[in-house]
Amino acid sequence: MQIYADNAATTKMSEAAIEAMNDCMRNWWGNPSSLYTIGQKAKEKLEEAREEIAAIINASPREIIFTSGGSESDNQALLTAAAKGNRSGKKHIISSAFEHHAILHTLNKLKKNGFEVTLLPVHENGVIRLDELEAAIREDTCLVTIMTANNEIGTIQPIAEIGELCRRRGVIFHTDAVQAVGHLPIDVKAQNIDMLSASAHKFHGPKGVGFLYARKGIILQNLIEGGAQERGKRAGTENLPGITAMAAALKEAAANMERDNAHKTEIRDYLIKGLSEIHHSALNGDAKQRLAGNVNFSFEGIEGESILILLDQMGISASSGSACTSGALDPSHVLLAIGRIHDVAHGSLRLTIGEDITREQADYMIDSVKKVVAHLRSFSPVWRDLTEGKKEFILK
Amino acid sequence: MQIYADNAATTKMSEAAIEAMNDCMRNWWGNPSSLYTIGQKAKEKLEEAREEIAAIINASPREIIFTSGGSESDNQALLTAAAKGNRSGKKHIISSAFEHHAILHTLNKLKKNGFEVTLLPVHENGVIRLDELEAAIREDTCLVTIMTANNEIGTIQPIAEIGELCRRRGVIFHTDAVQAVGHLPIDVKAQNIDMLSASAHKFHGPKGVGFLYARKGIILQNLIEGGAQERGKRAGTENLPGITAMAAALKEAAANMERDNAHKTEIRDYLIKGLSEIHHSALNGDAKQRLAGNVNFSFEGIEGESILILLDQMGISASSGSACTSGALDPSHVLLAIGRIHDVAHGSLRLTIGEDITREQADYMIDSVKKVVAHLRSFSPVWRDLTEGKKEFILK
Repeated sequence: MQIYADNAATTKMSEAAIEAMNDCMRNWWGNPSSLYTIGQKAKEKLEEAREEIAAIINASPREIIFTSGGSESDNQALLTAAAKGNRSGKKHIISSAFEHHAILHTLNKLKKNGFEVTLLPVHENGVIRLDELEAAIREDTCLVTIMTANNEIGTIQPIAEIGELCRRRGVIFHTDAVQAVGHLPIDVKAQNIDMLSASAHKFHGPKGVGFLYARKGIILQNLIEGGAQERGKRAGTENLPGITAMAAALKEAAANMERDNAHKTEIRDYLIKGLSEIHHSALNGDAKQRLAGNVNFSFEGIEGESILILLDQMGISASSGSACTSGALDPSHVLLAIGRIHDVAHGSLRLTIGEDITREQADYMIDSVKKVVAHLRSFSPVWRDLTEGKKEFILK
Repeated sequence: MQIYADNAATTKMSEAAIEAMNDCMRNWWGNPSSLYTIGQKAKEKLEEAREEIAAIINASPREIIFTSGGSESDNQALLTAAAKGNRSGKKHIISSAFEHHAILHTLNKLKKNGFEVTLLPVHENGVIRLDELEAAIREDTCLVTIMTANNEIGTIQPIAEIGELCRRRGVIFHTDAVQAVGHLPIDVKAQNIDMLSASAHKFHGPKGVGFLYARKGIILQNLIEGGAQERGKRAGTENLPGITAMAAALKEAAANMERDNAHKTEIRDYLIKGLSEIHHSALNGDAKQRLAGNVNFSFEGIEGESILILLDQMGISASSGSACTSGALDPSHVLLAIGRIHDVAHGSLRLTIGEDITREQADYMIDSVKKVVAHLRSFSPVWRDLTEGKKEFILK
C-alpha cells in the first residue's frame, strides 16, 4: 500500500491546476506588461486570477500581490511592518514561539536592526492566549504576527479574536496562513487581518508561487526591486502559468472545503484514537482545535528519523516535523514550544492526510506505526532504561 | 501574418521545457527536503538540474542557487556584495548607466544605506570602456556590476576583460546575464565572473524561476529567510517543476546556440539593412557587438507607443523598450544613456526575433514598419515642424 501522508510538506497538484498551467504555458505565455494583444491577453488572465483569489478570502483584487511563495510573502510582510514601525519609532513586534522559520529567522534579522521581539508562549495545547497577547501589546508595538495554523502540529489560533484585538489597539496584524489557505475559511475583513501569506503548493497548486494580501492603506515595502510589476511592489515578470494554476487549485479547494474537512476530520480522529493505543505516547497539540488533516504524536524511547525510514519502507510517506528543517539534528522548535522535552520531541511523527485518504489506509497506517514503534523500542537503550525504571517515563 | 518579435520580453516555452514541467508535476512532486523516497527522488531531480545548469556555464553545482527569476537573483547578488562591503568598510559600487531596473533600483536602495555608486557611461555604441572602468575602481570599491547584454539595445559588454580587470584589482564582479544566458556562450571561470544572474523565461524556460551563480568563497546574503533550502541561502520549497524545465530549456538553447545565432544574425542584419532605408532613423547600439536577435531603431518625429499599436494590428508583437516599464511615460533610460535626446528616444522600436524567424517574416516586418512610420509621420506635428525646417533633424 502506498500512502502519501505528508500533505503539510507539499501536495500533489490537482488536475485542474495542471490543466491551467498547461493552458497558460501554451496559450497565454505573453508578458503581461506588454502593449500588444498577446501581452494584454496575458494581463487579463493575470487580473482574472487575482480577482478569483481575492474573492475567496474576501479581499479586493488590489489587495493581492503575487510572490514566489509563502516564505517570500512572510519576509515581505514583516519587512513592511518593520519599515512602517521604523518611520514612527515603534520597534516592538509580537509573535509566537512556534512560528515557521520564515517568520522567526526574519524576526532575528529585524532584531539585529534594533527591533525588540516578544514571542508569546503557545502552551501545551499549542494555542496562544488572548489575555497574554493583550498584555504584551505596548505603545511601541508595530506588528503582531501569529500563524493561522501551525505547520507541525496543526493547531489553529483564534485569528478573528487576535485581529479584533489588534485593530482595537491600532497594531498591524499579519498571519502566516500557509497551512490554512485552502483548508480553512478565511475572511480577511471579518477576521480583521491586515496582511496574510499563502503558498500554492500547500493546496494542490504549483510550487514556486504564492501571494501576499495587504489591506488597502498598507504600503508594501519591496523585497525584490526592479520592474514595475504588481503595482511596483514586487518586481519580476509575472509567473502567469503558476498564478493561474494557483487560482484554479484554490477555487477547487474552497469549493470542496466543507466536504473534504468533514472527511479528513473523521479519519484524523480515527487515526488519533488508533495511535493513542500505543503506550507512552501522546498527541501533540489540541485534539479538536487543529487542522482536519493533521495528526502529530510523540512516542517515548525512540527517534523520529528511524520511524520515518521504516514507514517509508512500508509505503508510507510521513514526516517528523517541518520539511524545511529535516536533515537538521535539532528537535522541532514547535514541540519544544508546547513543552515537550528534548528526548520526547525527538521521537515524534507527523501524518498529514489528504482529501482522498481512506479508512483502509488509516487502518494500515495505525497498524504500521504500532509495528514500527514496537520494533524500534525492542532495541532502544532509552526504552530499556525506561522500562527497567532507570529513567522515568514522561508520557503516560 | 503573426510574428512574435519580443523575445527579449519573454519567450514561448519550448516543448522540452513543457514536457519536463509536466513530468515533474505528475511524477516528481515530492518535497526535496523530505526523507522518504518520494522526497529523495525529487531531491535527485533537483541536483540533476543543478549539475546540468552548472556544466553549461562551467560552474560547480554548489555554486548555483535557484531563485524565482532574474530580478531576485540581481537583488540577492547586490545585497551580498554590499554586506561584504559593509563588513570591510568598502562602500563604493560601480555599475553602468543602462542596467536593468532590478540593478538600478537596488543600487538606489543601497545608496540610502550609505553606499556610493558610480555609473559608467555606455557611450553612443552602448558599450562601456575598460579604461573608464579601471579609472573608476577605488580602494573602497566592493562591487562592479555590469550586464552581459543589454535588454533594450542588445549590446554586449567585454565581460571577460571586465572580469579579468576586477579579479586583478580584487573587486567582486557580478553580471546580470538575463539576456545572455542561453544566447551567448558563458564560462564563469574563463570570464572571471564572481556572480551571475539568469532567468529561465528568456531562453524558452518557464516564468517564475531563475538562478544565481556565486563563485565558491562568496558567502551569499539571504534575501528570503526561512527554511534551510539551497544550503540555507534561499528559503522556500524548491520549485522543482520550474527548475527541471529551466534545465531542459537551457540544455536545448546551449546545444543549438551556434546554429540559432548564425540564423538570427543573418535575419537581424537583413532587418537592420531594410529599416535603415527609412529616412531620419538610426539603429540604437553597436551594429555588430549585439545579441543576434536584437534590432532597435529610433525614428524621428513619431511616438513608439503608436508604432506598437499599429504593428500589433498588423500581427507583429514588438516593444519600445523593456516590458517592465511599459505603461510608464518616461523615455527609456537605456536610450537616454546612449545619448538619444528625449524626443528621439520616444520614437523607438525594439524587435527581438526568435530562432524560428523566416526571411518572409523579416520582409513583412520591414514593409510593415515602413508603412507605419510613414503613416504616423503623415499626421505628426513634430514631423511637420521638422520637414518645414521649424525644428532641426537629429537623425540623418
